[in-house]
Amino acid sequence: MEHPENNAEYAGLQVNAGVEQPSIVNPYLKNFRKKRQRLFTPGEYVEGILKGDVSMLSQAVTLVESVLPEHQTIAQEVIEKCLPHSGRSVRVGISGVPGAGKSTSIDVLGTHLLENYGGKLAVLAIDPSSEKTKGSILGDKTRMERLAVHPRSFIRPSPTAGSLGGVARKTRESIILCEAAGYNNIFVETVGVGQSETACHSMVDFFLLIQLSGTGDELQGIKRGIMEIADGIVINKADGDNVDRAHLAATQFQNALHLFPMPESGVLPKVLCYSGFYELGIDEVLKMIFDYIDQVKRNGYFQHRRNEQSKYWMYETINERLKNSFYHNPEIRQLIQPTEQDVLDGQVSSFIAANRLLDKYFHLLKN
Amino acid sequence: MEHPENNAEYAGLQVNAGVEQPSIVNPYLKNFRKKRQRLFTPGEYVEGILKGDVSMLSQAVTLVESVLPEHQTIAQEVIEKCLPHSGRSVRVGISGVPGAGKSTSIDVLGTHLLENYGGKLAVLAIDPSSEKTKGSILGDKTRMERLAVHPRSFIRPSPTAGSLGGVARKTRESIILCEAAGYNNIFVETVGVGQSETACHSMVDFFLLIQLSGTGDELQGIKRGIMEIADGIVINKADGDNVDRAHLAATQFQNALHLFPMPESGVLPKVLCYSGFYELGIDEVLKMIFDYIDQVKRNGYFQHRRNEQSKYWMYETINERLKNSFYHNPEIRQLIQPTEQDVLDGQVSSFIAANRLLDKYFHLLKN
Repeated sequence: MEHPENNAEYAGLQVNAGVEQPSIVNPYLKNFRKKRQRLFTPGEYVEGILKGDVSMLSQAVTLVESVLPEHQTIAQEVIEKCLPHSGRSVRVGISGVPGAGKSTSIDVLGTHLLENYGGKLAVLAIDPSSEKTKGSILGDKTRMERLAVHPRSFIRPSPTAGSLGGVARKTRESIILCEAAGYNNIFVETVGVGQSETACHSMVDFFLLIQLSGTGDELQGIKRGIMEIADGIVINKADGDNVDRAHLAATQFQNALHLFPMPESGVLPKVLCYSGFYELGIDEVLKMIFDYIDQVKRNGYFQHRRNEQSKYWMYETINERLKNSFYHNPEIRQLIQPTEQDVLDGQVSSFIAANRLLDKYFHLLKN
Repeated sequence: MEHPENNAEYAGLQVNAGVEQPSIVNPYLKNFRKKRQRLFTPGEYVEGILKGDVSMLSQAVTLVESVLPEHQTIAQEVIEKCLPHSGRSVRVGISGVPGAGKSTSIDVLGTHLLENYGGKLAVLAIDPSSEKTKGSILGDKTRMERLAVHPRSFIRPSPTAGSLGGVARKTRESIILCEAAGYNNIFVETVGVGQSETACHSMVDFFLLIQLSGTGDELQGIKRGIMEIADGIVINKADGDNVDRAHLAATQFQNALHLFPMPESGVLPKVLCYSGFYELGIDEVLKMIFDYIDQVKRNGYFQHRRNEQSKYWMYETINERLKNSFYHNPEIRQLIQPTEQDVLDGQVSSFIAANRLLDKYFHLLKN
């Protein structure tokens, strides 16, 4: 390492917590450029990552998240070279509405995992709102105080730039780098909002839904369609006076699950109670996850799901970039608003308006 | 009309019911071409449509549904010229799971509407499965026996070609033609499947959900997210021994509706019981629809919703054609399968695979 003094700087979340975030550029990047940190070659990044060098991993993730084309070029080559060394991890998505206790739960589950099962843990996030809210999840190191200082953990807040699709894509690319760096457990935290949950689901092996007992949460879960993608449901805050209510909620969720068809995985989702704060039932939650992974590895669903995810991301990337190419075209951008107005005024049909814009676009591409 | 003997041929559903359908070309078209029916000029179609000539309307809809470029060119010009004469109708989407009694209900509601309120009624459909099933809805004239022979009704089965987006777009274009031909009531029937219901919802002023009393249908409706887009819910088969159960179901739906936030329309959906077969409660259902339309016209939501729909269809059309241009490109088509295999084999990441295909595509467009 040429810049040993920077190791701590890029070692994870902790250093960045207090840094003011610019609007578009990744917060790490600001620091990165201010210090005139030189870019390494793709080979140097890969070598560092494969050795498990946290600083190099962190800098490579920064490139993945960067919007600068020269960073993206390096990032894509690093990802490509890490790909053969990736995939050997258990990827767990963790979701729940705000207040469900996601951060505390991840802190406790993660610490318990590292202490009792060994290995390494990377915690990533998908939060498309983080640009607006300056990092609503994973943005504050104090929320995962034990994991943040654990020598075998790596924590990154959500990428901030762009659409949900873009944010999620960057998180998925970062998973590859973390796995190549030897992180055999990946947690992906996401906010309890439909589309980011779907995006998270599309990159994990097990999707854990954290719920609370109480006011109609069960029906909320059903309504939001989220129970259909959960591989396990856990009721947090099952402690003190709340224990009975939590177990009642668990029974209600369990009953609700019977309304759904058997999941494609062939494994019925379990419902467990635990307390993140009092650290009750933590090992049971981890065992539920590992039992599930064992079962789907045996019945072939594990690989099937990963294959489907790879295909999904190929087509998602194609569709997203096709749209970007159109909607970010400077001449098209100028035409869209007036064309939309013509449609609203009944001057032109939606279809002919669309065709006019498309004809213009394809004509521009030719020249 | 040059071919008076063909008037009946193209006057609606009835003639076509027994015709064998080729796989891609619209069933009407086969007949159309076999008889060497000449194409009229766009102006002639428009003149015929504005006069309310059912044969000309039917032939123009056939062009809308055709996949042949020369037909599409004429169709788009006809639509454009009809646009200023469209919009003056009440568009009602009608959905429900198979067995809910959609066809019988449409027959009864439509006949009652025409006899008691006057005007004209066009019945269209969105059924993306109709290509496979050879027209599962509106495909059989015997299912709407009174409407099919009514002088002021016009019935078309679902367009069969292409994706859901394509099918839905053609139905929406046909609405414009029907309205220009003076049909002041449009019913759009759709199957009880999530995506086609959403597509139907995006082109109607009122979305009616037909349900049955009995086994957990209420929860099914909640799960499928369909209750959130329903402007009114009706329980069919509220007759004989079933009356009490139907009213119980109505109460359950009404309670479930309270779980949702107030709809954007500002009008709480009603839940009514009726019997399509015994023609009980038919006028109440129609009154519910017309009351709703009155309220949303007064509070401005009616126009707002139509504007949003126009924008939606402009962007939908753009996105669909961007994808078609890519995925239907002959050279890209040949590359997709092997590239997908490379991704599955871990030879290349989803993202780089996507980028390679896109680079190739944009290169092809340039030349």
